[in-house]
Amino acid sequence: MGKGELTRQAILEKATEVASAVGLSGLTIGKLAEELELSKSGLFAHFGSKESLEVAILEHAAERFVELVVKPGLRAPRGESRLRSLFDRWRQWPKLNPMPGGCILVAAAIELDDRPGPARDLLVKQQRDWRDLLAATVRGAVAEGQFQKEVDPEQFAHDVYAVMLGYHHALRLLRDPKAEKRAIRAFENLVEAARRPQ
Amino acid sequence: MGKGELTRQAILEKATEVASAVGLSGLTIGKLAEELELSKSGLFAHFGSKESLEVAILEHAAERFVELVVKPGLRAPRGESRLRSLFDRWRQWPKLNPMPGGCILVAAAIELDDRPGPARDLLVKQQRDWRDLLAATVRGAVAEGQFQKEVDPEQFAHDVYAVMLGYHHALRLLRDPKAEKRAIRAFENLVEAARRPQ
Repeated sequence: MGKGELTRQAILEKATEVASAVGLSGLTIGKLAEELELSKSGLFAHFGSKESLEVAILEHAAERFVELVVKPGLRAPRGESRLRSLFDRWRQWPKLNPMPGGCILVAAAIELDDRPGPARDLLVKQQRDWRDLLAATVRGAVAEGQFQKEVDPEQFAHDVYAVMLGYHHALRLLRDPKAEKRAIRAFENLVEAARRPQ
Repeated sequence: MGKGELTRQAILEKATEVASAVGLSGLTIGKLAEELELSKSGLFAHFGSKESLEVAILEHAAERFVELVVKPGLRAPRGESRLRSLFDRWRQWPKLNPMPGGCILVAAAIELDDRPGPARDLLVKQQRDWRDLLAATVRGAVAEGQFQKEVDPEQFAHDVYAVMLGYHHALRLLRDPKAEKRAIRAFENLVEAARRPQ
């Protein structure tokens, strides 16, 4: 990495941290420059606009997610093991990648849902890719004979996603001490249902 | 209602609408005064501070939720019917109470999860009350002999909540045409599991 790239990475780290707490909209170039002790024009030299900074933050967060959750998860053998492994790493994501304001991707989903533009488009693509990967993993469990043929992989992916959103809500807003236990139970129920003859 | 109360209600309607799109943090007294063609001091006379406006918005949204979802839902007979009725009304909440930026309570849950203060405290209380009511409804279905005795009502309430968060995400961010169908399927799976002897 050259010096420019190092600075860019440092900016992104800090920007992702700040945005996790105040949201992508709450993040201003001025505030970020202050935190980093850089000039606003220096920041603009790296990102050009607030919008491209938002896109870069989402890319950065997704890269971390791939490194810390997806890649290690995919190392497990095809089928139910891989699904479990992905779920486990995903559940640990807040610990693997601690952020002051929780997962930026969950926050961005709410912020951007009614804000058209390149940041929203990227987030939608990222989320669809992740759902597709989960569905493909479920298909693997069907192919291995672990899950019933009637299981709908897209429904399963949707359901696991909902489990994680419920976990995030119970953990971060309600500070429910049983949040993780409940998420695990919900996941196990989905797996048991997928195994059971219809 | 006196004139003061009518103005207060009109302010709250508009404030809730604006906050649904830009978030509670994005809402400024200045912007709101402009939209309502009122003076900033006139607005402050009604709410005193940005913080009390946020609290009033959450109260207002929760009252609407009680009117449009909870009360009609509770009219159904105790047990599974009541649970279904609450779920159906809840799912229709975005249509019953259309807001430009989607459900303010879901958005606030993300915004406030790391922002201590009276708005957060109120939201947590509201969400706990709603989960408690769902759990009590599940307990009713157990008492009626429709659900198995082993069913954990708090887990069920947590799971239904997750189903709704997953629905919101798929509907608003992904614009998934199957979002509602998937949410219904997920709910039916929970009900079927609760009925099935363990």
